[in-house]
This record gives sequence, structure tokens and C-alpha cells, in this order.
Amino acid sequence: MKIEQIIEKKVNEVISDQVFMLTQIDKKSFNNKPGSFATMELSDDSGKIKAIKWEDSEEIFDSIVMGDLVRINGKINEYKGDKQIIVDDIKVDEGNYDKAEFIPKVQDHAELIKGFDNLVDTLKDEFGEDRKDYFDVLSNFLNSKYYNDFLIWPAAIKFHHEKLGGLLMHTLKVARHVYSYSKKEPGINFAVAMLGAIFHDIGKIKEYSFETGVTKMTQVGVLFGHKVLGMEIVKGFCEDTFLSKEEENLLLHIIASHHGKKEYGAITEPKIPEAVLVHHADLMDAECYKVIDALKNVEEGEYGYSDKYKGYIYKA
Amino acid sequence: MKIEQIIEKKVNEVISDQVFMLTQIDKKSFNNKPGSFATMELSDDSGKIKAIKWEDSEEIFDSIVMGDLVRINGKINEYKGDKQIIVDDIKVDEGNYDKAEFIPKVQDHAELIKGFDNLVDTLKDEFGEDRKDYFDVLSNFLNSKYYNDFLIWPAAIKFHHEKLGGLLMHTLKVARHVYSYSKKEPGINFAVAMLGAIFHDIGKIKEYSFETGVTKMTQVGVLFGHKVLGMEIVKGFCEDTFLSKEEENLLLHIIASHHGKKEYGAITEPKIPEAVLVHHADLMDAECYKVIDALKNVEEGEYGYSDKYKGYIYKA
Amino acid sequence: MKIEQIIEKKVNEVISDQVFMLTQIDKKSFNNKPGSFATMELSDDSGKIKAIKWEDSEEIFDSIVMGDLVRINGKINEYKGDKQIIVDDIKVDEGNYDKAEFIPKVQDHAELIKGFDNLVDTLKDEFGEDRKDYFDVLSNFLNSKYYNDFLIWPAAIKFHHEKLGGLLMHTLKVARHVYSYSKKEPGINFAVAMLGAIFHDIGKIKEYSFETGVTKMTQVGVLFGHKVLGMEIVKGFCEDTFLSKEEENLLLHIIASHHGKKEYGAITEPKIPEAVLVHHADLMDAECYKVIDALKNVEEGEYGYSDKYKGYIYKA
Amino acid sequence: MKIEQIIEKKVNEVISDQVFMLTQIDKKSFNNKPGSFATMELSDDSGKIKAIKWEDSEEIFDSIVMGDLVRINGKINEYKGDKQIIVDDIKVDEGNYDKAEFIPKVQDHAELIKGFDNLVDTLKDEFGEDRKDYFDVLSNFLNSKYYNDFLIWPAAIKFHHEKLGGLLMHTLKVARHVYSYSKKEPGINFAVAMLGAIFHDIGKIKEYSFETGVTKMTQVGVLFGHKVLGMEIVKGFCEDTFLSKEEENLLLHIIASHHGKKEYGAITEPKIPEAVLVHHADLMDAECYKVIDALKNVEEGEYGYSDKYKGYIYKA
Amino acid sequence: MKIEQIIEKKVNEVISDQVFMLTQIDKKSFNNKPGSFATMELSDDSGKIKAIKWEDSEEIFDSIVMGDLVRINGKINEYKGDKQIIVDDIKVDEGNYDKAEFIPKVQDHAELIKGFDNLVDTLKDEFGEDRKDYFDVLSNFLNSKYYNDFLIWPAAIKFHHEKLGGLLMHTLKVARHVYSYSKKEPGINFAVAMLGAIFHDIGKIKEYSFETGVTKMTQVGVLFGHKVLGMEIVKGFCEDTFLSKEEENLLLHIIASHHGKKEYGAITEPKIPEAVLVHHADLMDAECYKVIDALKNVEEGEYGYSDKYKGYIYKA
Amino acid sequence: MKIEQIIEKKVNEVISDQVFMLTQIDKKSFNNKPGSFATMELSDDSGKIKAIKWEDSEEIFDSIVMGDLVRINGKINEYKGDKQIIVDDIKVDEGNYDKAEFIPKVQDHAELIKGFDNLVDTLKDEFGEDRKDYFDVLSNFLNSKYYNDFLIWPAAIKFHHEKLGGLLMHTLKVARHVYSYSKKEPGINFAVAMLGAIFHDIGKIKEYSFETGVTKMTQVGVLFGHKVLGMEIVKGFCEDTFLSKEEENLLLHIIASHHGKKEYGAITEPKIPEAVLVHHADLMDAECYKVIDALKNVEEGEYGYSDKYKGYIYKA
Repeated sequence: MKIEQIIEKKVNEVISDQVFMLTQIDKKSFNNKPGSFATMELSDDSGKIKAIKWEDSEEIFDSIVMGDLVRINGKINEYKGDKQIIVDDIKVDEGNYDKAEFIPKVQDHAELIKGFDNLVDTLKDEFGEDRKDYFDVLSNFLNSKYYNDFLIWPAAIKFHHEKLGGLLMHTLKVARHVYSYSKKEPGINFAVAMLGAIFHDIGKIKEYSFETGVTKMTQVGVLFGHKVLGMEIVKGFCEDTFLSKEEENLLLHIIASHHGKKEYGAITEPKIPEAVLVHHADLMDAECYKVIDALKNVEEGEYGYSDKYKGYIYKA
Repeated sequence: MKIEQIIEKKVNEVISDQVFMLTQIDKKSFNNKPGSFATMELSDDSGKIKAIKWEDSEEIFDSIVMGDLVRINGKINEYKGDKQIIVDDIKVDEGNYDKAEFIPKVQDHAELIKGFDNLVDTLKDEFGEDRKDYFDVLSNFLNSKYYNDFLIWPAAIKFHHEKLGGLLMHTLKVARHVYSYSKKEPGINFAVAMLGAIFHDIGKIKEYSFETGVTKMTQVGVLFGHKVLGMEIVKGFCEDTFLSKEEENLLLHIIASHHGKKEYGAITEPKIPEAVLVHHADLMDAECYKVIDALKNVEEGEYGYSDKYKGYIYKA
Repeated sequence: MKIEQIIEKKVNEVISDQVFMLTQIDKKSFNNKPGSFATMELSDDSGKIKAIKWEDSEEIFDSIVMGDLVRINGKINEYKGDKQIIVDDIKVDEGNYDKAEFIPKVQDHAELIKGFDNLVDTLKDEFGEDRKDYFDVLSNFLNSKYYNDFLIWPAAIKFHHEKLGGLLMHTLKVARHVYSYSKKEPGINFAVAMLGAIFHDIGKIKEYSFETGVTKMTQVGVLFGHKVLGMEIVKGFCEDTFLSKEEENLLLHIIASHHGKKEYGAITEPKIPEAVLVHHADLMDAECYKVIDALKNVEEGEYGYSDKYKGYIYKA
Repeated sequence: MKIEQIIEKKVNEVISDQVFMLTQIDKKSFNNKPGSFATMELSDDSGKIKAIKWEDSEEIFDSIVMGDLVRINGKINEYKGDKQIIVDDIKVDEGNYDKAEFIPKVQDHAELIKGFDNLVDTLKDEFGEDRKDYFDVLSNFLNSKYYNDFLIWPAAIKFHHEKLGGLLMHTLKVARHVYSYSKKEPGINFAVAMLGAIFHDIGKIKEYSFETGVTKMTQVGVLFGHKVLGMEIVKGFCEDTFLSKEEENLLLHIIASHHGKKEYGAITEPKIPEAVLVHHADLMDAECYKVIDALKNVEEGEYGYSDKYKGYIYKA
Repeated sequence: MKIEQIIEKKVNEVISDQVFMLTQIDKKSFNNKPGSFATMELSDDSGKIKAIKWEDSEEIFDSIVMGDLVRINGKINEYKGDKQIIVDDIKVDEGNYDKAEFIPKVQDHAELIKGFDNLVDTLKDEFGEDRKDYFDVLSNFLNSKYYNDFLIWPAAIKFHHEKLGGLLMHTLKVARHVYSYSKKEPGINFAVAMLGAIFHDIGKIKEYSFETGVTKMTQVGVLFGHKVLGMEIVKGFCEDTFLSKEEENLLLHIIASHHGKKEYGAITEPKIPEAVLVHHADLMDAECYKVIDALKNVEEGEYGYSDKYKGYIYKA
Repeated sequence: MKIEQIIEKKVNEVISDQVFMLTQIDKKSFNNKPGSFATMELSDDSGKIKAIKWEDSEEIFDSIVMGDLVRINGKINEYKGDKQIIVDDIKVDEGNYDKAEFIPKVQDHAELIKGFDNLVDTLKDEFGEDRKDYFDVLSNFLNSKYYNDFLIWPAAIKFHHEKLGGLLMHTLKVARHVYSYSKKEPGINFAVAMLGAIFHDIGKIKEYSFETGVTKMTQVGVLFGHKVLGMEIVKGFCEDTFLSKEEENLLLHIIASHHGKKEYGAITEPKIPEAVLVHHADLMDAECYKVIDALKNVEEGEYGYSDKYKGYIYKA
């Protein structure tokens, strides 16, 4: 039974022998008696659900870690308007599962992959012979070890696009905005802008680890952030091409500056129109995603809460 | 002879009996002897040029005002790298001219008008019967006195889109971004977003006067700004339609909030996804315009200055 | 028994069959066992008190809503230094009560009404024939449906003047400051300043609903805020008077700009001295109210807590 | 002939043998030939006027300093819309003048002094026997060397109340606001608030020097500012009274905190309601003064420029 | 048994008849049943530990206050990774203890005192006869009642150097930085800089009370802050010396400005290089202390949490 | 004749056949007649001086560029209190000069080089065998092409340490602060902190060009800034050593974060104590340099102007 079905169940219905991925587990002390309980987050590819184990929670911390697949018995409860599972027992399931089936995924992942393929084909045509050097850089990416990660990586730990395929989904949207703006605009260097858009967040592959299905900051993520890491990756793609050092620098500059202002973490502020464009396309997609996402389970004419707006968003 | 040709002339070449619009005139005192001189800005539909009258400038202030068409004799000079005209004599020309030929205009104005017509046709189809109420609001706009002004109004006094047709050009670009984003996104109410985009800056028609070809703040512009004025105008378009009061309020809210944050002048911050979208589409177009414009006369591999970035922008 | 008397009772004293207005009710889950309890706020015209129902709280959420008059049995407890009621049972009381007796009210409400009447009489004299147009606008207000609401509306949901009569009390204080400043100051247009002061917060009547005794944001409050709504109301008062459009605009500008700076929500920043004056009189009254209110139950030489100052205020 | 009459004269009219105070003199180099000229500001009790000496300016810097009374011959010119004097010759006049006749002064200075006397009398009555300790502090001020300076000192170098009597005028207005608010408000300690208001800017007597008629920062003004200096002065007034140390501290705290927020220079932020009140009364008077002053020579329906608003203020 | 040993004990081990200082006690209500419990903080000179009393806590609030020495029976528990004591019974111990043995103290307190003595000796030599006036000021400090407090006072309530001897430790470090910088730098007045460094935080002796071993803000601390209080103290040290008023003012200015910017609480911003130097030496020591302290119980290659950085600090 | 001697000359004294480096040249238009003049800055190793050529300036722009050595005839003038040269004629001097004699240099450059050598020797000893890997990185630097540049590079274009040897001088001071702090502080990893200090600004060698004696931003300087460029350089020094990847990352992180906060340009904010320390040592040296430099030609008891403090600094 998928989590999206469990959410439809009634309070006190029984959950028996279901397998999920454990994406979060925390030990909490009772605040009015000795002892502790465990709060958890479980996932499969249909979504996430909170769970809680009131009794005998101590021992499970020795046997389970985040990223494990776990088999659970319990029953449904409701807390602050959301369904949760009161866990009776939980143990690691060593069965032979495909982990991808336990990770929340963006909608229409397959279609996004096809959409990205199409974009690549289009760029091949449009870059043509004149800008074949740029396409070679893109080819190096497609043939690199980073490409497969790119297709599945999340785009955030929280805030926006925090699911399997989130990086692909966000990058594709940003690239499409930039495409539609650049095509008609002679003041924009089309090839520079498109590669900047495609690579702007590529450093997130090194900023987060995701192998176990749980998104976590890496040590290089903490020390350098995804902009420095992305510049390093893209330098690699430029090797063995005929792209000039100066052209390469423009691509790297878009990555360095895509947060727009120093106080938002830009390494330098955008110094070329292509960098201004990628910055705003990135911002627009990230901001719209947040508020649309806050309303995804909300009826027309009602409100949904968004952390980012520190208030309620209304569904028109 | 058009200004774009005059700019190509050499220093000391003679300008004789040319007619321009006077868009700016200031009296300046010499700072090392008594007396004063006049600095001017002249325009026609090909561009603008600075001019200066060193002698006998006192009397011209009585006979000429901004917006007049003037006949000029003088010669070419260069100042800080830009050509200017040293004026020998200047007088108002009462000839029977079409003022529109003297006002700098966005490129491809006719095509922009056609582009807007096409957008309206597309919306008529796509809104269909279901959202005919929204199209009626749009029709009321097209049939109103504001429509003709909308086609020619500038979108700014300075900073961005400050030419004849600037409001149309900016609005069309914003509307196209919003269209391409909304079409694919079920989380956006398409009709609300499109009308919000089309009307977001409509209040500029009351915020600036432009009748004489010179853009100036009006008194209501100073006292209220274009957001309040735009809300008032769009209320008028909603009269005599079947749009509900609540639907009307959503359109007005997009206008009220399109600057995004209070410190940037938003009356309220966006509370619906459609308002977040219009805000970011507006911001992206305005910012990209500024830097692209700063490079419009700059060669590849060189820098152009942008006030907004308080520094130089590089042409990739 | 009034709430101000209940607060004087000892822990464990019994409350039997008392009627209050329910102004707030929230469902809270226990954080160490399944199930939930209810926290409430109760009011009458002498004040407010917290209440809590530990058992069988589930069912009451179906039968009671905010704004209901409820009959309560329970006993007194103390929590974080404040008295509260532990509720044994609670039910809606359909008796024939005057709701006004259950809403906390500013002190000396009757006197404030008289004070406002006196102010109006004074202005009638002082405006005289010369500025009769301005007095006509004031008359239209007094004869409108808004006048009765004005006398009882709160001036805030929280923060300042959040009681029945709060809007009147705050407006009267602001108007008196402006009166005393304007009378002696030739640089201020007296009639413009006084009407600006009286109308500056009038839009709160549409920004909050208060009919049920519970203050809540309305949808137009969320979408537009009280400045836009107040401008709309005052436009109505100007109809059918001889006030010129320009004079009307000055009144509306004071409303639009009374928060002083964009980052505090001003639609435009004050552009006339009268608007600067109303802004500062408003600010002074609101800020002083907050700290004086924080000390209202505090002895001389002791501290009271104020959220606004994020710290303690000392009573001199 | 007073400066207010000179301003009415026409360009090229002759000024002969007039005496003014020299309040500012700067040596400026020509920017297109060797040599220098002198720009000056002259004053008498009717106002100020700019002056310029084009020729032989070198020698005057040796013989004249700011604060001197100078005898001038020259003629009228107009520069950027303001009248100025083109000086032919200037020399120090050692005549036996009363310097007070050469310093710009607030309007109705004598009446302000009387107003302050009346306020003191009122406070004597209202403080009565109960708060005689507070009145003794005020008496110590009236009998101190600071009192005479207080009556004539300016309240600022620029920005607000920058004339002879400016400190008195500003203090009296602030004290009146505080009086009218405190009288009706039981939450305010009346005596503490009134003395706080009267003394809040007293430190300016040590922050600026003014003996020569030219306002300048003193070294202790630069190193400590008027809040620290004012606290020191008021400590002196508290000596030999029965005011308790704690009561004295409340007065000093009002001075320390009257700028309201750290970023505006408050030593500590207001911790008592009396300090919040004095802060806002101070702010209101200073801000209103600025915009009213910007319009003092402006016709109704026109604009005046205010530095503070970085834009034009409209006269209603 | 010292607290540093208790922390090494296992959960459920018994604590019997141990004496600590009670530095914090708070009454907390259960949030899911009537009644309350007590949370405490206990200290001795080896450190601090949290404690909790679940039952019969009401009565202890009458008999115990912060600063008391208490005798405790209970057992060890662990909460959020830190050891705490579950208290069975607690009572005041009137025994004849030296309070200093119960207050957490900086490491190597005796050595810090010796270090300060050495610094004084060094300054005596280096100031020599030329700057004997400055050394006299320092002598007045050493002979004053403030000197003993200076040796033991904490430098903060929380955030940095919040232990017995913290003020000495912080002052000595700042003085050493300033010493090493000033010695080599002809642009710095050595004596002014050194006395400024030694006295910059001296006002904390009046800002906090510490007599009972519990650090608390005093009323003058709340009303004026340690900069004003320190200026007052140092004025006293300058009495009966030959230091000129101007030299004294430089010392006082360093105290007034040592927070560097108004928004960080500087009374005036630094106007002499010596004040800039003391500000940055102070900032550097305070900031480094915070992050080093956050890692003091952390292994190499692991993270420790720092409030100040709102995140984790990594131990290299 | 050196510039420091020329500055002592009187107005109108003749300068004949002197050679300087031209470090700045700008074409300025007269603002009250047609034509233009040239303003210049000239340097030798004793300082800088402004120069101006009033006549026949047009032609020199074709023959001279910044960085050229020029032979000058003219005479002395004074402008705004500073001496300048009125140039009669100027031409490029192709003589065989050592350019280093024409570039302003920090005081005691030779001693700074020796100081750095000593520091390296000390570190060799103190790192010893245990941390030989770190010393190998330092050796790679000393043997690299960057070392010679490091000894002469400026540390800024303007603001601080903007002379030949400025980078060395600033780096040495920062390293000494870090050394003295780290030696005594067990919470700091000494080797990491020292190498971080030495390398923190090394990227300036790529951020500015200085070959011609004129400091200018490079294109990579504009696009990436010195932090990214420094990380790249230091990666090179780590090659062919036994430093672990993680240890290398700590060095790179110090460079990435040494501006302390995002709004000051830090790529990431400091996450290790060593980075906090280097940041504050850097800040302290840069800020003190600015104010000390502003007073370098000022007498005790007088003021010098500092751009950074937007006001006057007093010399104690």
C-alpha cells in the first residue's frame, strides 16, 4: 500500500507489514516524565508520512539508520490535521527492493527526462557548426558520470524541488525560460546563456549526498557551497574542447553569480546580461514553485500556509 | 537629417536648419564668470542628442518650452566621448509636423502592436466560453480610451523602457513569460494571471503625462503611484461584466502587489501564486532590459556602463 | 461574576455556570500520548482569561465556534503566573444576551464618544464658512453606515488598541495631537490635516470583521490592506460635496502615506507636511500605547514585559 | 539694509557699504585656468545670502575669518534661482556692533522665551509640594550658566532648528507635546516626562560652539555627542536636591535613549514609557519642521525641495 | 564530588548529599496535566549541570533562591545528549563554605592574574617618566575598590567569557593584541591605546551584579549600559592625576566607541586610530572565543553547535 | 628630483626635465568653452603628484599611455591645498630606467621581505616533522612563479595597502596576529591557521594586473574575484604533497570565507575557528591601516579626513 493511500485511511485503522524508507528519525525526551520516544519520517515514491513510536523506542536507535528500508506495524492517528502512524513495531527489512521505489519523486519524471533530451537535440541544431564548441561541452556533460546523478538529484534539502528529479525539473524549467527569452533577444549570447542555465545548479550533485535516498549536506557542501563545486565540475566539461579560456570563464561566471546579490550568496554579482537572465529565471522558478507547492492540497477559495511568505497563500 | 545620422558626423561639421523636439532644457551659470549658458536635449524618432548654447542663452528661456519643435543651426562637437551640437541659433518652428516623428520609439513598434493583437486573439480562444467574463474585461480595455495610450506610452521616466511604445513592449514581454509559464502549470489560474500581467503597469498612463512627447510625473502620480491608479482603471474595465467581485479583487491584488516586497513599493505582498508569477516576470524583464540596453552600442569583448550595477557590464 | 473578579480568585476555587464569549479555541495534541485537548480564550467586557479543557475535548469542536456565548463550569488554576480556568464542561448558551457585554472594551468608552462629538463641534466652528466643503465631507461620514462601526471597531488584531472602541480611542488621540500642532502652525493646512487624522485608519472597518465580537482579517483586508480600503471609503464621503478633486486627493494621500516609509507599508511616502504630521502623531500614539499597556498591571519600581521591545519595560 | 530686502532687489543693482556677519568662506580653484576665487555666506538677523568674489580673492583669506563682521561693496546676481552678491571689495569692520543683530534668529524669539517662562510657572503649580524635588532640579537649571545659552543656542548645525533660539523653540514644542499627552495619561510619570523633555537636547550647548555666531562641532561634541554631554550637565542640576539617585537615573535615561533606536544613535533603547514619549515627541517636531521649512517660501499648489525626502514636497 | 566527575557517571547512578550553587531555577507547568515541576542549573568551580525535580516542586520555590548553596540527593539522567540530575530532595545548606568554590571559573585564573600583573609592570617601564601621568591613572585603578571586582567579574551574561575571571581573561587578551600591534606602529599613541584596552569593558562591574555568584543585569545596567558606566568609573581614576582633560577624553572616547558602529551600540563611532584598534581587538577576541568554546568538548573531525553562527562549526 | 622634494617647492617654481611614471591620465572637456585639457597622476618611489596640461592636450592622448615613463617641463601650482604640476610639455622617455624606481612602495620593503623569511623559518621549526605536509605546501609556494609577485604586489586598488609591497605588508601583519593568537590557544589548529593567513589574499595576484606599475582589475578579477582565484592557486601548491584532500579543503575554506559575511563577499561564512580568526585578523589590519594612513601627514591634535569614516579622524 502506497503512502498516498495510507493518508486516505481513517484514524485507528491498522497498518500491517508495510515497507517504507526511513528518511528521518529523532529521539525525543518526554517533558514530564523520564524516558524518551522516537519521531520518524517515512517515504515511498508516492509521498511522505510522519510516524511516532511511544514505547520501547530506545533500542531502535541502535538497529536502524536513516536510509534504511523498514517494515512497520501500527495504526493511523491524526496530529495537527495531518495523518501519522503510531508504530507498534519497526525493523529493518533486508529484502531485495529497488530503492528508487521508496523515494518521493517529482511528477512525470520520465517526461522530464524526455524533455531534457529534446532540449539537447534542439540545441544541437541551433548551435550548428558555428557554436559546435559549446555543444561539445554539453556532450562532455552527457557522457560524464554526473549526467546520471543530474537526472535524479533533488534541487534542495528543503524549500524547493526537494525530491528525486527535482534538479532536473528545476533546471529544465529555468533552461526553457532562458531559451524563450534568448531566442528573440539579439542582446543575449544564446549559447552562453543556455549552457549557463543548464549548469547553474550542477554543483548540487556534490553539495548534497543522495545515494541512500536521504538528502544531506556533504562536507564540501558545508565548506564551499554549490557554486564553487559547480565551477569545478564545469571546468572538467570544458577540457578537451575548443572552447576558449574566455568563453569558459563566461560559463563559470554565470554559475558564480547566479544568486544575483552578495547577500544572497553570489560569489560575484552578474557582470554579463546572460548572468542576469539566468539569475532571474532561477529566482522566478524557485519562488513560484514554493507558493504553488503550498497550495497543492488546497481547494479553490481556501488558504495554504507557506513558510517563505510567513503567512497564508490564497488559491484563486 | 535624422539624429542617428548626425551622430555619425565629424567634429566641426555644420548643422543647418534641422528640426527636432526639445525634450530638456536647463539654465546653467558659468562657475568662473557672471552669466549663464543653456544645456539641451533634442530628439527625433531615431534617437536623442545633447546640445549646448554658450551665448545669448538668456533670451531663449522666454520663448521655448520643453516639448516644442525647434529649428536649429550649429555645429558638431564631442564631449566625454558623445557627439553634441553647439547651437548658434534656435527658434520654435510652428510648421505643421506630426509630433510622433520626433519622439524616440522602441524598435519594431508596429510589430509589437501586431503581437499584442495576436495575444488577444489567442486569449479569446483559450479563455473560451468558460472564462468569457475575463475576456469581457479585456474587451472593455480594448474599447476604452486607455487602449490608444497603452500602445504609445513609455514604461518609465528613466531606468527601463523609457520610449514611445515602452509600456506596450514591456507588457507584451511580461505577458508572454506569464503565458508560457501558466499554460503548463496547473497550479496557476490562467485567466487571472494573464489579465494581471496585461494590466500590471496600466496605471502608468495616469502616473506620467506624455501628451507633449516629454515624460513627466503627474500630480496623482506623485501622490499615489501607478499601482493605486492602475487599480482604479481596472475597476472601470470590470464594470458591466459578469466577473464576480472576488475575481475582480484578484486582478486588483496582482496590480497592488506586483513590486513583490513592501520595501520595493508593493502595497501588499503577493498572496496568490498568480501575483508571485507576475512580480517575477516583471522583475526579470525590467532587469534584463537594463543590462542589455547598457550594451546596445558596445562591441563584443568590451564593457558598457550601467547605473543600476554601479559598474561595468561585459558583452560576451 | 465578571472576569476581573475571577482573576482575583484562588487556585482550585470553583467556577459554576458562568457565561462568557469564546474568542479563541484551538485543538492541541498531547505530545506524549495519543489524543488531544482544547485551549480557549474567554472574554466579557471586563477582560479576557485563558481556559483549558483536558478531557473529552474532541466533541466540543463540532458544537462551538469562535464568537459563541458559552456557559462554563470548572475551577481556577494558575499557569506561568496567570490565572486560567480548567473547564469541566462547556456548552453554547442560546440565551438572549447583549453581545456588547461580552467584548473587552476600552476604558471610558462613553466619554470617548462625547470627546469625538466635541471635536466635531469644534471643527464646525473653526472650519467656518471658508472651509465648509471640508466639514461637508465630515458630515457625510457622520451620516454614513461607517460611523456606527467607527465608534466600536478595534484598531488592531493585536499590538495596539485591540478592543471595542479602540479605533475611536486611537483616532481621537491622533486627532488631538494633530489639532494642537496645527492650530499654532501656519505651515499646516488645518482642515486637510484634521480630516486626514480622523480618516487615517478608517479602512480598518473593512480590513477586519468584528460583527461577532471576534476580530479577524477579511479577504479584502488580506488582499489590499486598510490604506487602499480607507481611500475607497473616503472617496465616497467626498461625493456630493464641493471639495475639488485636488483637495480630495490630498485627503486620500494622507491615508495612502500614513505609515511613513515604504518598508512600513506606506503606499507612497508623505509628500505634504500634513501627511508627515499625521504619520508621526499616529506612530507616537501607537508606540506609547504599547509600553503603557505593558505596565498597566505593574507596580511602580517593577518591570513589565513588552513583545515590541523584546524585553522588559520599567515603571518609573 | 537687511538681507531680506536685498533678496528683493534686481540683478545688477548695487550694494554699497553694507555690514554682515561672515558665516562661511571657502577658497575655490578655477577649473579651467590657474588661480582661485572665494565663495561666502553672509548673515544678519533677517536671513542669509551667498556671495562670491571673483578677483583678488587670495589676500582676503589672510585678513578675514568666519564670525567676523564685514563691510561689503558689490552688486546683485542670480544663481540657480537664488540671489547672490558679486563682491567688489570686502573688509573687516571693527565698529561697535551688537553681534546678535547679525545672526539669523527664529521667529518670535521673545515670545518663545515668555512661553518657556509660562511653562515653568505651570510646572511649579502642577508639581506642587509632592514633586518639589523635581522642581528644584529645574530651578538649578534656571540658575545655572546653561540657562542663558539655552535661550539662544541653535538646535542643529543643519537639518532642523539651525538658528539662534532654535534649541529653545524645539525644546518648547517637544515639552508642549509631552505636556498635553502626559496630563491625560495615568500611565506616564508627569514630572519625569516633563523634565526629560526639557533636558533631552541640553547637551547641544556643549556639542556645538556658537559664541561667534557660527555653529561648529566642539571636540567633546565629536568624541561623545550631545547625549553623553547632556547627562553630565543634568547630573549637575540634580546635585543639592532631594531627588533620589533612582529618580535622577530616570531623567538621565531619557536623555541617553531619546534617539529611540541604536542605529539612530540611542545609547540604550527606551526602557520606560516616559522615554518612549519624549523620543516620539522629539521625532515628530524635528520631522515636521523639516518639511514645513522646505515650503516656507513656496506658494500654495507648488513644490519645495527637501533634502531629507530626497524629492519635492507639495504645499497643500 | 565535582560536577566534571558527575558528568562522567552513567544514567541511573545515585547522587547523594552533594552541595552545589543554585544558579537558575524555573517553575514550569506540565502541559498535559495540572501541576508543575522545577528546572534548575547547578554549579561548582568545575562546571555546570542541569537538574530537574518532577514532584513536590511547589514548596521549594518558597525556601530557595538563586545563589543559594544547596544539598542534593538524586540520580543521573540523560536529556538531549547531556547529563542531568533528577532531584529527589534539595535543601539549602547553611554550612560554612567558600562561595568561590561553587562558581565556574575560567581556566588558569591564577596565571591570568599574574599575567595582568606582568602587563602592569611592563607598562610602568615602557610608559617611563614621559607618560607617568597615564601610569598614575592605572595606579588609581589598581588601588580602587574596582580592582578586586575586575579580577573575578564575568565578561558577559551569556555569549562570551561568562565565568568568574571572564572579564580579566578577555581584557588581558585584548590588551595583549593592542600591545603587540601598538609597539610596532608609530601611528598609534601607545599609552592611550593600552589604557583604552584595559578599561574598555570596566563598566561591566556596574552593569552586572555578581556578588551572589549569579550574573544579573543591574538597574543602571539596563538604563545606561556598560559604556556610560565605564566612562564614569574611569573619570574617577583620572582625578588627582596630571592627565590633561583632553587626554582623559581620549580614554573615555575609546570606551564610548568600542562597539564600533551605532547599530552595535557604539555611543559614537571611533574617531581616533586607538579606538579603531581597541574595537577590532575586542571583536576578534569575543568572536574567536565563541567558536572555540563551541568546540571545546568536540573531537577533531566533528561538529559543534554555535548559537552565534546559527549552525555547526567544524573542528579541523 | 624626487616627488617628495617637489612637494616642498613653492608655487610657480619651475620643474624642468624631470622623469616620472604616468599612472593616470584623463581627458576633460572645459565646461564653459569648446576644447579639452588633461589631468594626470605621476609617480616615483617617493610618492605621487597630480599634474594638469591646459593647452594642446589633444595630441598627447595618441602618444602616451598609463604606465609610460614621461619627461616633463612645467611649474608648481597649488589646488585644494595640494601641490600639482602645470605641465608645459610632456613626452615619453625611452631611456633605460628601472621601472621599480618609479612606483610608490611601502616603507621598509626590504625589512618586510626579511620578516617574511623569518616567519617561514620559524614555521619550519614549529611545524616540525608532524606537520611537514603543511610546510611542503608552503615550500611549493616559495618555489612557484607566484612568490616573486607576492613580494611586490599591492593589496588593493584603493582603500588599503595600495602600494608596491602592500600585499606582503598586509599578509605579514595578518600572519603575525594569527601567529600570536594561535600559539597560546589550544582550540586553534596552528598549521591550518598560519597557512590560511599567508594565503588568504594570494588571489589578488590574479585579480589585479601590476606589471606596468599601474594597478588594474583583470578580466578574471571582474568575473570571479580574488577568493575563487586564490583557491585555484593554492590547489596548485597542494599538488605533489602528502596533505590529505580534507586538510587541503580547510585551507581553501579559509580563503573562501575570509570576508566573514555573505554581504561582505564571503563565498561561505567561516565554519572553522581558524577561518574566524583569519577573518578578524584581516579586518583589524585593513581597518587600522585606513585610519592610521589618513593621519600620516597630520600633526598631533589635528584632524585628517578618511573616506571610509565619512568624516574626520583625530590624531591623539
